[in-house]
Amino acid sequence: MTENREPRTQTQEPGTQNHRTQEREPRTPNAERRTRVVIVGGGFGGLNAARALNGADVQVTLLDRHNYHLFQPLLYQVATASLSPGDIASPIRWILRKQRNVEVLLANVSAINPAGRLVLLTNGDPIPYDYVVLAPGAAHAYFGHPEWEPRAPGLKTLDDALEMRRRMLLAFEAAERETDPERQRRLLTFVIVGGGPTGVELAGALAEIARQSLVQDFRRIRPESARIVLIEGGPHLLGTFPDPLRDAARKSLERLGVEVRTGSIVTGIDDRGVTFKHGDASERIDAETVLWGAGVAASPIAKSLGVPLDRVGRVTPEPTLALAQYPNIFMVGDLCWFVQDGRPLPGVAQVAMQQGTHAAKNILRAIAGQPLQPFRYKDYGIMATIGRGSAVGDIFGLKISGFFAWLFWIFLHIFWLIGFRNRFVVMTEWAWSYMTMQRRVRLITGERLWPSSSS
Amino acid sequence: MTENREPRTQTQEPGTQNHRTQEREPRTPNAERRTRVVIVGGGFGGLNAARALNGADVQVTLLDRHNYHLFQPLLYQVATASLSPGDIASPIRWILRKQRNVEVLLANVSAINPAGRLVLLTNGDPIPYDYVVLAPGAAHAYFGHPEWEPRAPGLKTLDDALEMRRRMLLAFEAAERETDPERQRRLLTFVIVGGGPTGVELAGALAEIARQSLVQDFRRIRPESARIVLIEGGPHLLGTFPDPLRDAARKSLERLGVEVRTGSIVTGIDDRGVTFKHGDASERIDAETVLWGAGVAASPIAKSLGVPLDRVGRVTPEPTLALAQYPNIFMVGDLCWFVQDGRPLPGVAQVAMQQGTHAAKNILRAIAGQPLQPFRYKDYGIMATIGRGSAVGDIFGLKISGFFAWLFWIFLHIFWLIGFRNRFVVMTEWAWSYMTMQRRVRLITGERLWPSSSS
Repeated sequence: MTENREPRTQTQEPGTQNHRTQEREPRTPNAERRTRVVIVGGGFGGLNAARALNGADVQVTLLDRHNYHLFQPLLYQVATASLSPGDIASPIRWILRKQRNVEVLLANVSAINPAGRLVLLTNGDPIPYDYVVLAPGAAHAYFGHPEWEPRAPGLKTLDDALEMRRRMLLAFEAAERETDPERQRRLLTFVIVGGGPTGVELAGALAEIARQSLVQDFRRIRPESARIVLIEGGPHLLGTFPDPLRDAARKSLERLGVEVRTGSIVTGIDDRGVTFKHGDASERIDAETVLWGAGVAASPIAKSLGVPLDRVGRVTPEPTLALAQYPNIFMVGDLCWFVQDGRPLPGVAQVAMQQGTHAAKNILRAIAGQPLQPFRYKDYGIMATIGRGSAVGDIFGLKISGFFAWLFWIFLHIFWLIGFRNRFVVMTEWAWSYMTMQRRVRLITGERLWPSSSS
Repeated sequence: MTENREPRTQTQEPGTQNHRTQEREPRTPNAERRTRVVIVGGGFGGLNAARALNGADVQVTLLDRHNYHLFQPLLYQVATASLSPGDIASPIRWILRKQRNVEVLLANVSAINPAGRLVLLTNGDPIPYDYVVLAPGAAHAYFGHPEWEPRAPGLKTLDDALEMRRRMLLAFEAAERETDPERQRRLLTFVIVGGGPTGVELAGALAEIARQSLVQDFRRIRPESARIVLIEGGPHLLGTFPDPLRDAARKSLERLGVEVRTGSIVTGIDDRGVTFKHGDASERIDAETVLWGAGVAASPIAKSLGVPLDRVGRVTPEPTLALAQYPNIFMVGDLCWFVQDGRPLPGVAQVAMQQGTHAAKNILRAIAGQPLQPFRYKDYGIMATIGRGSAVGDIFGLKISGFFAWLFWIFLHIFWLIGFRNRFVVMTEWAWSYMTMQRRVRLITGERLWPSSSS
């Protein structure tokens, strides 16, 4: 069904709004008009799609609103001051510099016009395409409470991570200056909403900072007395992990002094703290710092497609990843709702990477007039870390936890990082931080100096 | 004259507004009331003052509006994407963590009340002192044109450096998207105002980025065609350096393709570029990106002292660094106007460091009832780098330039960096960037995505 045996031919003009392409002509005056593949998003999905098109006779344009590809599994380590932004991000241009059929544009995509075969930018510019790979990723979902966002920042971009770091470190600074004991307690209370991998890793890292890294730094407060609460709506942490790993994660966190509150639904976040429901009881925690590790919402780009969306705004493609309605549009990553063997695929890097590669290969098949292949995800496992020297994982069906799981996690993540320099620097940082229990990049940047309540 | 043979005695109560001290009492209930030294600023001057008080029987409070000490001589390398913020900054708390008589507070100082012996914070909190070391540093001076500041950011803090980096990289990105040749040229024109070490180092690094690091990354523009103009009002670059070094610096820059315009006074900076006067002629350069490396203005804290200030707002202390009017106030660093052998001392790290140490020692002398010593600056030399593999310097009277000057500059700067990890990481970054000509941390962070003219 999603085969596209008649792509636009190489020389066919798209009719309208191709002034960009014409502008580019002078630089390759003798080139035939090649098939244009536009990739929206430079994350794991988009980048792998671009790489899979290496050497193919297509003109690839990759659009992203940031100039860097981000190694998102380590983003929480930037938020908790273990790594610098430069350690886990590389300029997309640099990664693709040798792939001559790709151009990278820093651009905010606002919508897709499937009828006109155009990707529309927020500034109004249209980018024409013959095929498009949609991999814009996800944003934070606040479950219908957008007013919570300024109080409880999420973790998707480098700026998010720096904002989390800023708030966390400023809370300790403000507590050191505070003379009112009650306000001091509130400043030293940290609530993390969401017990998935992001929330678990954030809580573990935050507990370590308070109990180990900062112990010597303050004179009036004892950072190790900070209260760290992890709130999860479901009955378990790490809902998508096997049972023994869930229990191991909970135990590791509790050993680090994190209060784990499962079965607790957040009902309110205000200037002074968080309210949540546990069964019929309503509870309240006064906290200056609230971090959001919960649900994700699909990109608003999906709406412009005019196809049916699921509850959180994701698009369901055919098994080939192409849309039934528009066979030249392919869905990849968090925006793609894909059910395999009766279970939806999780929103993790591995899924996006495999989908990106698969979508690109299907585009090449379509151009060559061959039948498209259905996508099938190969699960190599999932992992989460809980502080220094402890992790839980399920690799090839083997459940591991503790120190060796952690070493394996480090090995895997260094191996996946793009660029030798990053691997080397991150390895050094980890070795340093393991030996000294110090987090040396705990710099507060950003101009807003103080949280509201500190003065 | 500035001797202070009768400091407040150890047990004397200051009378008013010492609630902070009382709040702290419970944690050291048996301590006698110790002499309170407040240090304003955690730069080279303030940090060295704190360290010189190590082990002394005084209670030191160090106030800074950032939580980090910044190695400012390398700040331009963050601005030009060679180093990460974490490479050249360390948390002040961490640096001083083992010095038990120091507490560090993240605080914005608004004024000094010499009569009440109080440092006042912007939130109104008063910090009482027996002695104060004033080392708040300098801000950018726009020569009576504050309206230029948003168009031409200066370089004093990590946030300044990240803002410069953002503008510079965004200009290349916008040029890649731009189709109008005239606007594209303007986007690829960079003007740096000020031919001191900051301006020279920025221009050299920027030229290298355009001519080497970015060459492979773009498809529509040629980054190496970027125009880089360095504008200096005086007759020479590096006005405080010896003649042969000035010439060497100019030649090195011109070899990198930088247009050097000396004797040129900037008369206007607007949305589209820079206007300047050269003799009687007025000239204009259309440029998207204007960077400010020119004059510095003293901190507004000086005004609150009620003592005479020089033209740019600096304070002239006695030879002991204490004020004639208030012998318990010591001036250190850029805020201190100090003439030695008929020449004012330059605003460099070495001067601030030596003054910080000297002020602290004089405070200990005053407490001990000993006569204060006059300050004397020992000049070990000055250096500036001009791109990869080239520097100029005057070390112990020896004038050096070229590759060996650059190696020496690297050695010196690594040696001065605080913390082993920083030294190691910075050395690695430099080796990597020297071998590959790549600047791997060219990440654009900050939420404002596009300069005004790009859409």
